[in-house]
Parts: sequence; structure tokens; C-alpha cells
Amino acid sequence: MGSLDLNFTDSSLSQTDVFKPLDHEDFRKQAHQMVDFIADYYAKIESYPVLTQVQPNYLRSRLPSTAPYLPEPLQTIFHDISAHVIPGITHWLSPNFFAFFPATVSTAAFLGEMLCTCFNAVGFNWLASPAATELEMVVMDWLAHMLKLPASFMFSSGTAGGGGGGVIQNTTGEAIFVTLVAARDRKLEALGTNDVKKLVVYSSDQTHSTFTKASRLAGICPSNVRSIPTSRDSEFALSPELLRKVVGADVESGLVPLYLCLTVGTTSTTAVDPLEPLAGVANDYNMWVHVDAAYGGSACICPEFRHYLNGVERVDSLSLSPHKWLLSYLDCCCLWVKRSDLLVNALSTNPEYLRNQPSESDSVVDYKDWQLGTGRRFKSLRLWLVLRSYGVANIQSHIRSDVRMARMFEGFVKSDLRFEVVVPRKFALVCFRLKSFYRAEPSYVDSLNRKLLEWVNSTGRAYMSHTVVGGVYMLRFAVGATLTEERHVVAAWQLIKDGADAVLKVKGV
Amino acid sequence: MGSLDLNFTDSSLSQTDVFKPLDHEDFRKQAHQMVDFIADYYAKIESYPVLTQVQPNYLRSRLPSTAPYLPEPLQTIFHDISAHVIPGITHWLSPNFFAFFPATVSTAAFLGEMLCTCFNAVGFNWLASPAATELEMVVMDWLAHMLKLPASFMFSSGTAGGGGGGVIQNTTGEAIFVTLVAARDRKLEALGTNDVKKLVVYSSDQTHSTFTKASRLAGICPSNVRSIPTSRDSEFALSPELLRKVVGADVESGLVPLYLCLTVGTTSTTAVDPLEPLAGVANDYNMWVHVDAAYGGSACICPEFRHYLNGVERVDSLSLSPHKWLLSYLDCCCLWVKRSDLLVNALSTNPEYLRNQPSESDSVVDYKDWQLGTGRRFKSLRLWLVLRSYGVANIQSHIRSDVRMARMFEGFVKSDLRFEVVVPRKFALVCFRLKSFYRAEPSYVDSLNRKLLEWVNSTGRAYMSHTVVGGVYMLRFAVGATLTEERHVVAAWQLIKDGADAVLKVKGV
Repeated sequence: MGSLDLNFTDSSLSQTDVFKPLDHEDFRKQAHQMVDFIADYYAKIESYPVLTQVQPNYLRSRLPSTAPYLPEPLQTIFHDISAHVIPGITHWLSPNFFAFFPATVSTAAFLGEMLCTCFNAVGFNWLASPAATELEMVVMDWLAHMLKLPASFMFSSGTAGGGGGGVIQNTTGEAIFVTLVAARDRKLEALGTNDVKKLVVYSSDQTHSTFTKASRLAGICPSNVRSIPTSRDSEFALSPELLRKVVGADVESGLVPLYLCLTVGTTSTTAVDPLEPLAGVANDYNMWVHVDAAYGGSACICPEFRHYLNGVERVDSLSLSPHKWLLSYLDCCCLWVKRSDLLVNALSTNPEYLRNQPSESDSVVDYKDWQLGTGRRFKSLRLWLVLRSYGVANIQSHIRSDVRMARMFEGFVKSDLRFEVVVPRKFALVCFRLKSFYRAEPSYVDSLNRKLLEWVNSTGRAYMSHTVVGGVYMLRFAVGATLTEERHVVAAWQLIKDGADAVLKVKGV
Repeated sequence: MGSLDLNFTDSSLSQTDVFKPLDHEDFRKQAHQMVDFIADYYAKIESYPVLTQVQPNYLRSRLPSTAPYLPEPLQTIFHDISAHVIPGITHWLSPNFFAFFPATVSTAAFLGEMLCTCFNAVGFNWLASPAATELEMVVMDWLAHMLKLPASFMFSSGTAGGGGGGVIQNTTGEAIFVTLVAARDRKLEALGTNDVKKLVVYSSDQTHSTFTKASRLAGICPSNVRSIPTSRDSEFALSPELLRKVVGADVESGLVPLYLCLTVGTTSTTAVDPLEPLAGVANDYNMWVHVDAAYGGSACICPEFRHYLNGVERVDSLSLSPHKWLLSYLDCCCLWVKRSDLLVNALSTNPEYLRNQPSESDSVVDYKDWQLGTGRRFKSLRLWLVLRSYGVANIQSHIRSDVRMARMFEGFVKSDLRFEVVVPRKFALVCFRLKSFYRAEPSYVDSLNRKLLEWVNSTGRAYMSHTVVGGVYMLRFAVGATLTEERHVVAAWQLIKDGADAVLKVKGV
């Protein structure tokens, strides 16, 4: 690689003066090479250790400390990807990935992403690329229909300017943050103050940590962020009675309830907060209610799961991440709101250099006013290609297939007396553990389960994660990586059993 | 297209029960088709009207209101992209795009983006994909070297945990927001209060609107967001003397200066705030200083432009968007900070389900604690491929070529007595207008320029934008779209002259 000397002048660059970084024939040739590289990676993905075994700084120590001054051939770069990058990747697309929630993908979404990149349409407002804005509106309505959301969340309900509709955010964190800020600004305006100190936000102790973070960012006092305890009895769902009690106490102390974040499918155990009664409490106190359905929401496109959204007509906003379970690659978080005018009030800007006739006529949506940043990509292409290439039928079938495999795994766990399922399975995640036994200290059982997890993950043949809920350490087996088939679940269970043998034997149990 | 009926059950799906959304041979075949589709689009991009001429709701009225139930063939989708999507796209990659700031691209970045999509590595923390975190650290240091940033902004300076380093954000809005929140929380902690009402933030009236927005989001009182006037005399740069005066008055009123946002290359006219003296004022008042070098920063990889960053050693953070001028596609905003511990204090989360040994040992960077959301893509691959495939030499040459073409255009403007350059050109943007003339009302001259812009843009043969600065309406001709060559600039100038003929003739001048 060349050394870095930035002080060359034009005259020393004669070899580069016909630099054409987007020659379409070079593009064609090299992009075809990349397609083959990627297809080959997908073909052999099963052969890689799922969880990488590299040590901190492994890559930094292998790469030069400055950029090359002169070009390097693509073949050298391909070589370095294979030799240095891939060994340090945790293969999220491996069929043996069962950790966290899998991030699902598909050929159609890949094609959509290529097209999004291709156009590089910077859709900050309608005029900057009408197709980008309008396709997003169409696709968000499509998904809303698939979820049987009320018309009040759709553009097609026809309330022009300020009514319901959807927008693609990058992550759930942003979806929660922008709605929280919209709620905050509406409440402060109603109170006629700039003082956020009295505002209180609510969620359960199972809500994703991104909610506490978003609250801090929005300036909510840390002491006003309520994390209401849940218990195993209610399968870790938030209790409406408890919520009412906590909110009531706050109101009596002179505080102002602002925002309630509910979850359909919590990260630890896929608990589902009962929307209907909880939104009822929130409505009584005039709070904004948001539903984080990042994972569980996708299942609700199947009629047999739709009941988890019962009561959604009473909430203000809902987010769902197709990058989790709708085959869409990162990053894609769909957010629907009933009152987009409140988002726009909190998030709009109107600099002279972006002024244009369609925006001023209020006849169009300018998505920059629905999100934190200004620039935005043409992400709806990805969802559009997924929905059209596969149809709702196949996507429902994909959800059901994952659930079926998880049910199978649950059966395996139940059939082995050394194990227990800790929380009843709702979707495609099984929370299980090596059972406690006569006279065993809870901490000892926890440590056995920790050992088992380490044993399994260190083989590189499967990757699971863990959580601690209600004081119980448990293993999480999440089925859903796009390439996972029954045989992978069967093999993973065999591996886990082997791990249990090893761990329990060493421990002399 | 199929109609939407979500109430089918498993048994009706026999045709879809071998649904394999990531079969590697299907992937190979279809991705090759997409490469050819995109290469063909690039080959004929010049033939499309740059600014689309569609009307609001054009696309929504052409597409079905619900997703198809059954799959549709890829060829149908390709057809719809050509027939319905492309006509509604404003072609940001067209060589005749001179509006806003062009969003530059390259084959290498496209390949990097394909690879990023391919791995779908969700790098929220180091362990989730060590290569994703470490390559980002390497590339951010590479770019810092290219910009000759002080070592205090680099990981290689070796201050493990909490020292300097860089991170890729999505947009400048997020870069400003996260640093503002870090500054806010540090200041509130120092003051021992939760009360943000006394905190004041500063920028010039030329600063991007995203700064005001970020301030509102972070809970800064709107009345405490100072937008300090600039003038044509100082080429619309912020005056250190005026800043000192404004800050001094705030301090006398009992307010607390928090954050100063400076710009290297403002959006309207590419004005450059003088970092050294302005940071000096801010340092006296213990403010956080951020430099938004979204556009202008890229030029500073060339020695002849580096002086615009003089004084950067006195600031706390700097952001630069390679998607603007470093051939990188959206969205990619590089943010460097001196004290990452302050970002982490404001942005960290530590849920049980993400706990792991490397993170707890503090030996690694967990980028989720440097940004708003949790999930994040492997974006550094794009920059890595750009820097390696082209080398610093070619990228410098690309910057210089754009500047040369802008200089040429500036010469054209100066050679035509009907026109004037309104603000001296610094980079590759020329701000110009039809001159005022004897007895003409300023508003009349503005309207002529407005007509000229409409005339040019409506031809579809070039696309420019406008701004109003210091009360003057002006046209912005920004050279830099990746495919732009001298012949396009020459043709655009001829078109503008024709437009002037038409506009001035109609107006009877």
C-alpha cells in the first residue's frame, strides 16, 4: 500500500487525471464481480463460526494506519475482505444464528437496496424526489393494511396535511424519540411553559433500554422516567392496575403524565403489554401512547397473532422494524402516527434554500419534518420489492415457519428433564434454562447456565444469547434467521444437549 | 396484482411452502439482473429530465392500495420501476444536476454498500461484529489523517476508553444532536441541576437549519437559540467580535453559554466561519464547539484548502459528510470528538441482554453508545472501498476537478455583463444572479432571477437551486455530481444564457 503524502500537487497526478469513478461499464463489470463474491459467501455461510472468536484490536493491528495514496486493485480488496474482515464478523445471516432477534433478509430486499443506492435520491422533501416520498407513503399504507391498523394511521384515510400516516425511520430509538418530542412539545404548549421538569414518562421494566435513552435525550428528568415492575405471574406484561396506581400517585404529587411506551414482544422474553386496558389508563390521563412492536408486530400480519394489537385504535403511534422479521435488511423501522401535524410541529424546518411551490401549497408530505435528520434514502424500495416479489402469502408463511420451528425446539426442551422453559413461548423465541435441582443455590444454577451458553457459543456452531428477568438467568433461543431450516434447529438442540452433558459432568452433578 | 385477503390459513399456502427468500443461486441470478438494470440506468442517465415534472400524488394514484397476496415476477417489477418510479425521480446522479450540494457516488462505494448489505452485521456493540466496529475505527482515523486533524481526534492517539475518535452517523443533524446532548449533560452535571432553561446555544444566521432543530429537540429554550447576523462584508462568516458581545450579554443576564456551532462551507453560499478566533471566544466561556464541515470539510484533504480548518485543535467535535463530496452515497456523516466519554455518558445503555465480557472489560468501543439508536450498519465498508480503490491522489484530484469546473463557470458569469457573481467562490459553488440595473426595484430583479431559475429547471436539461442571503435572491450553481464533465458545465451555461434571453425579452428589458 502507498504511503500517505498529501502534499502532492496537480502536476504529480498525471496518472489520475482521467479519474472516472462512475464509468458505467466499469460499474457493470465490478458490480457483477461483487454479486458473485456475495453469492459465494451466502453459499458457504454455514461453514463459518457463527460467533467470531477474534480478540479486541485484531483488525486494527492488521491494517495500515493511513489510507493509500494510490489506487489498489479490486482483487487485493476482495482478498483482504476474505482474510481480515470475514474472520471478525459475527455472521448474523448464518442459519445457526439464534441470538438476540435475528435480522432477516431476502434477495428481494437486497435488490431493493441496490436500487435505493443506485438512485441515491435524497428525499428530504417531496420535490427532491417525488417517487421516493410517494412510494414510501404507498408502502406504509400497504403494511398498515396488512396489520389491519385503523384507517386513522393511513394516508389513504385522506386527512390531507396533519392526519395519519407512516414514515420509515432508521431504528426504534428514533421512532420513540421523535414521537416523544412531539408529545413533549404538545404538552408544554398546552401547559404554556418551557418547563419539562414536571413531565413523567412510563413503561414497564421490560421495555427496551432505548426508551430510557430517548427520554434522557428529550430532556425528561431521569427521576421522572418510571420503569414499572412486572412479574412472572403476568408473563412480564405491564399491569394496567399498577400503571393506574403509579400515574395517579404522580398526578397527586403535581407531576404531569406525558408518554406511555408499550411493547408487543419485549426484547428479553417477547412479553406483550395488553394495549387495550393500558391505553385506556393513558387516555384517562391524556398521555401519548406509543407501541414498540419492533419484533412482535411483524407476526400480526397473520390473523392468528393479530389479537396482540387489539386496542391499537386507542394509541397515538406504533413502530415495527421490518429489518427484524420482514426480510428487509437493516435499517428499516416503520413508524405510524395518527397526527402527523404534531410530528411536523416538533420537527419542521423551513430554510430558504429548500423552499418550493409544492411544499408551500401543503399538498405534499415533506418527510424531513417527520424525522431527526434532513437527508434520507429511498428505503421504501426495499419493502416494496419484498412485498411484491413474495406477496403477503409467502411472508405470512415465513413467519409461521419460524414459529413452527420454535415450537419444535420448545418441545425438545420440554422432553429433556434437565431443562425447563422459563416463560411461555409467544412467537419464535424460546426462553429456557437448565433447571434448578434439589438444594442447588440459585446462583449456582445461573452459573451452570452461563457455562452452557459459553460452551455452545465457543463451538462456533450456533450462537444464542441470554437475559435475566425476574432475577432468573435464562438462555434465549430465537428462531428466525432467513436461512434457518429444521435441520439447523435439530442440530442446535443436539449441541445444547452435548453442552449440558459437558457442563453438568464437569460440575459433578 | 392479487387482492389482499389476510385470512388464508396455512392449508391454502401449499404453493408457497418451500419459500426460500435467500437461495444463493436465485440471489446470484437476480442480483446480476439488477446490476445490468442499474448499469443501463447510469449509461442513459443523461437522457432523463434532471428535475422531474410530475405532479403531487402522481405515483399514489398509479399503484394499488394494498400489497399483492401472491408473488409477482421480477420482470413486472422492473417494468414498474421504469414506467412509474423513474419518471418521478429527481436524478441526483445526473451530470446536469447543479442544485443544493450534489450527492457524490462511485462504483467503489456502491460495491462497499453491497457488501454492507450482504453481511447485515448489526454492530451495536463490539462483540455483535468486531470487524464492523474496528474497520470503522480504522477508516475514521484514515480520514482524520487525510484532514490533518490533531491526534486528539483519533483512536490511534491511544487514549483507551473515553479519548478521541470518530464514528459514522447517518446525517449532520444527528452528529450535532448527539454532541449537543453530550455538552448539555456535562454542563448540567457541572451546574448540579436538571434545569436546561439557562443554557444558551450559538451559531450564525447562515448555519444549517438542522442546528436549530437539534437544539429544540434537546430541550433548549427556543428563546435561547442565538442566530447571530452575518453580512456580505464578511462574506457571511460569523464575526468573533460579535459573538463575544452576544455571549457576554447572555452571561451578564445570568444565562449559561453551552454550545457553539461553526460551519466550514455554509449551505447557502459556502461561507467559512474562522475557527481559530471563534473557538477562542467559546473556550473563554467554556462552551462546546462543534464544526459542521459537511460540505467544505472534504476539500480540506487538499493542502490548498486545509487552512479552512486552522484552529480545529481548539474545538470539541467536527462532522463531515462523505456522501456530499467524497463519492460515498447516502447516508454517511463522519463525526470526530475529542472526548468520547462525554458522548458515552449521555448515550450509553446497558441492558442485561447485551452484556458481554469485552464490553465490561472496557477494552472495546461499543458504538451504540455514540449514537441515538441501537442497531447500526457496517457503513465503513463504503469509505474503506472508496479510499482503497481510488487512493487519496484520485480523491484529491476529483475535488480539484470540481473546483476547476466551478471556476470556469464563474468565468462565464463574469464575462456576461447581464450577470454578477454575488459572493466570492470558495469551493465548487457559484452564487450568481442577473444583475440589478438602472432604476430597477430589487424585488423586480429578484423576480427576474426567479423566472430564470424556473425557466432553466423546467427544461429538464439542468437543475439549479436558489437561496436568499443578506436579503438578496440568488441562484446556486453547485458543480460536483460525479458524472459532470466540462461539457455539461458549458451546456448549462448556454442554457442559462438562453434563459436570460427569454426572461429579459419577455420582461421587455
